[in-house]
Amino acid sequence: MASIVTSMDTEALMQIGAIVGEKNCSTRIADLYTYGFDASIHHVTPDVVVQPRSTEEVASLVKLANKLKIPIVPRGAGTGLCGGAVPLKGGMVIDMTRMNKVKEVRIEDLYCVCEAGVIYDNLQKELAPHKFTFPPTPGSAEACTVGGMVATNASGMRAVKYGGTRDYVLGLEVVLPTGEIIRVGTRTLKNASGYQLERLFTGSEGTLGIITEVTLRIVPKPKKMAMVLAGFDTLEKAGRCVSALIAKPLLPSAMELMDSTCIRAVNKAINAGLPDVAALCMIEVDGDPKVVAEELVEVAKVAESIGAVGLQQTDDPALMSKWTNARKSVMSALSRYGEGMVSVSLADDMAVPISRIPEAVVAFGQIAEKNHVVIGTYGHAADGNLHTKMLLNPESPESWRNGEKAVAEIFDTCVKLGGTVTGEHGVGISKAPYFQKERATAVGAMAAIKRALDPNNIMNPGKVQEWEDGCIIQHLRYPCPDQKD
Amino acid sequence: MASIVTSMDTEALMQIGAIVGEKNCSTRIADLYTYGFDASIHHVTPDVVVQPRSTEEVASLVKLANKLKIPIVPRGAGTGLCGGAVPLKGGMVIDMTRMNKVKEVRIEDLYCVCEAGVIYDNLQKELAPHKFTFPPTPGSAEACTVGGMVATNASGMRAVKYGGTRDYVLGLEVVLPTGEIIRVGTRTLKNASGYQLERLFTGSEGTLGIITEVTLRIVPKPKKMAMVLAGFDTLEKAGRCVSALIAKPLLPSAMELMDSTCIRAVNKAINAGLPDVAALCMIEVDGDPKVVAEELVEVAKVAESIGAVGLQQTDDPALMSKWTNARKSVMSALSRYGEGMVSVSLADDMAVPISRIPEAVVAFGQIAEKNHVVIGTYGHAADGNLHTKMLLNPESPESWRNGEKAVAEIFDTCVKLGGTVTGEHGVGISKAPYFQKERATAVGAMAAIKRALDPNNIMNPGKVQEWEDGCIIQHLRYPCPDQKD
Repeated sequence: MASIVTSMDTEALMQIGAIVGEKNCSTRIADLYTYGFDASIHHVTPDVVVQPRSTEEVASLVKLANKLKIPIVPRGAGTGLCGGAVPLKGGMVIDMTRMNKVKEVRIEDLYCVCEAGVIYDNLQKELAPHKFTFPPTPGSAEACTVGGMVATNASGMRAVKYGGTRDYVLGLEVVLPTGEIIRVGTRTLKNASGYQLERLFTGSEGTLGIITEVTLRIVPKPKKMAMVLAGFDTLEKAGRCVSALIAKPLLPSAMELMDSTCIRAVNKAINAGLPDVAALCMIEVDGDPKVVAEELVEVAKVAESIGAVGLQQTDDPALMSKWTNARKSVMSALSRYGEGMVSVSLADDMAVPISRIPEAVVAFGQIAEKNHVVIGTYGHAADGNLHTKMLLNPESPESWRNGEKAVAEIFDTCVKLGGTVTGEHGVGISKAPYFQKERATAVGAMAAIKRALDPNNIMNPGKVQEWEDGCIIQHLRYPCPDQKD
Repeated sequence: MASIVTSMDTEALMQIGAIVGEKNCSTRIADLYTYGFDASIHHVTPDVVVQPRSTEEVASLVKLANKLKIPIVPRGAGTGLCGGAVPLKGGMVIDMTRMNKVKEVRIEDLYCVCEAGVIYDNLQKELAPHKFTFPPTPGSAEACTVGGMVATNASGMRAVKYGGTRDYVLGLEVVLPTGEIIRVGTRTLKNASGYQLERLFTGSEGTLGIITEVTLRIVPKPKKMAMVLAGFDTLEKAGRCVSALIAKPLLPSAMELMDSTCIRAVNKAINAGLPDVAALCMIEVDGDPKVVAEELVEVAKVAESIGAVGLQQTDDPALMSKWTNARKSVMSALSRYGEGMVSVSLADDMAVPISRIPEAVVAFGQIAEKNHVVIGTYGHAADGNLHTKMLLNPESPESWRNGEKAVAEIFDTCVKLGGTVTGEHGVGISKAPYFQKERATAVGAMAAIKRALDPNNIMNPGKVQEWEDGCIIQHLRYPCPDQKD
């Protein structure tokens, strides 16, 4: 990368270059523009992008930034959907992807140690020969980094049985906003040694420090997997199927839900060949082969009792992977679904108690109709985590306003049902106002912790303030007619 | 309880009485003396003991204490082994055991909601008819409270497969040091909604606020359990058996270790009838009956390959319960083992990476010999969590000095092996100096968070300061000749 000075002080840029090396530091307009995005609807251009390759370099960068009060945003693969890595106040984006070494795989100790920039799928490749796994299965598995997963407390489709990232973080190395390097947590399975700061940094979205190394608990891979595909004539019935399975009790490793909009979108985009029904449940069971066989029968029985149509089941890895890919393609397929419409991540990550899913999806349908928006509903239903994507015309102010109204109503519904506005994507920019409402009593304590650890407010600044103050949808990447940065 | 004023201001006591009612508030010497203990070696007398029965009462007490700068120590059942509930600075002990209602059991949503004072076994009794469980199995299950478990991040013998308390805390209601009532976390299985304060409060040992309500994830109870009892002619071989099973990979639900001192102590105290060998492994497997049967065979094979003697296996609940009781009785049995000796909880809760157990137990033996102390080693070996109890003559200064030296060496050894000084008991008073050493880089950040949330330092004061400063063994309950309060 070359250096073209923008708004940042030349002296500061030279010092940054001296820390990471000229070629790992850029102020080129194209680089800055690119690093102003994540996978959300937001965009703000930073002043400089750096790619450190060691914790010491990160610490030196942070020390410098703390002295000069330069805003810092740490960044993994930029696959976040809420603007968490968008540098609201400009400054320095620290791209962690060059710190990509799996440092240890300790099967006999049930842990592994990674640099923050290790890609999830690459870690899985290292664990696979040992028949071990790090279970959370984020949708962006082939791109997202382990550090980013920790920073956002990401999870995915297997959380009902295996939990999310937070349940696997044993220890972290963190560079504090002062530039100090600390180690929190342990390499042991248990730890009652003072405040669980490793769990506090998990989900802190780059506002409390920079995660440079992650120690993760790993578990044996299940010996066998199988799936059931169940169609339903209403989304509400699919939701009831989810609750009925859990209450049995039967703990599938995943239960994915898709509504007709999503089904049609993936059938159109990638010729997925899914049955054209009102709603689909993809139910995965795993474990010992004999138990899996028994559970498949039970799953089918429960689905039938709710009125499932066109039941299919398989343990063929190729077919399972085809179904899973169809589900994973929903987000991109929806973008191409409507002419002149974009699929936006707004109310995209609510979670409700499992038994409230039928109510939630019925309400989403009513909200969509009332506000004249197209909503695709899908998600990790087994853990109550629902995604809705809205199809909006980005050039129409009315379309945005309708979208905003629908978003607010969806979030209100979920919180009323005992849920949260974000199950796995984080708050970032998109969720700030709704988060503020959901967490009214706790946001003050969060801000106090932020101020205590980052007195100069250099770490991902603007985010916690907005969490505290509440903000409207802003910093849009689209040329939205009546909303500007 | 009656009121006899001690060092606390009469006006303050009257206000406290007005909040909880006269009969739920005591300054009787006998009550104060009793509440100066937990299950550790420490003792400090508080000024008043109160038993609130609602979150609102707790909040009023804390508001008052914050105004008048009265130290507060929240307390569950007082089963802690490190002095966490011992009121170092006197003041008010808030006994939470009257807040003992299980408020909700939501099987279909995989969670339950309890007041903080619910006893672990009572919660299990409510879950049992649904065939569900809250898996951590603390040794003090019949007495300890759920709130206390959260406050200390307690776990127990099943953490290798099921994790500790921290992995089950979905949400909390907390009274902050200001008296403000906040809700953190959710009732959903996933949550990426801001800082995971529920995990920060987990293990905060009453220093950041008072936990009044707990939302816990619950899971289906395994259909079947079985156990293998394997004897070994060295403790090191028992440790190798643990590593070999994990590396297989085979994930038992528990693997308990006992050395010959512990075996003889329980045989003598409760006529446990355990084989008189150098070391015993109790290995529990659980799950589907067919899988359990297969795993039992595998466990026995691995144990034999390490040289196990007198292998026994059973799925008879009565025999399993007899074995488990023998293991649970180690602590009390050791107290009665040596004439004129007491069994003290000093280096009682180290954890090391699983594969380092053989090295650790060999080192403990050498340390005991070198320092002329008797050490009983046992613990939850599958998760690397080892307990050592030391038999000391409490009236001999030399015995204490030897004990202290051995403790320091044991902790140093564990930290060098990549471990921690406390896997599940917490820091409290006993671990402070060793904790300080282990967490040298992180303790400053912990103290900053403490100051941010508790600016008047009313919550369990003295503890975090000692974590930060390091302290020696002090505040002893025994009339130790050269160490006084």
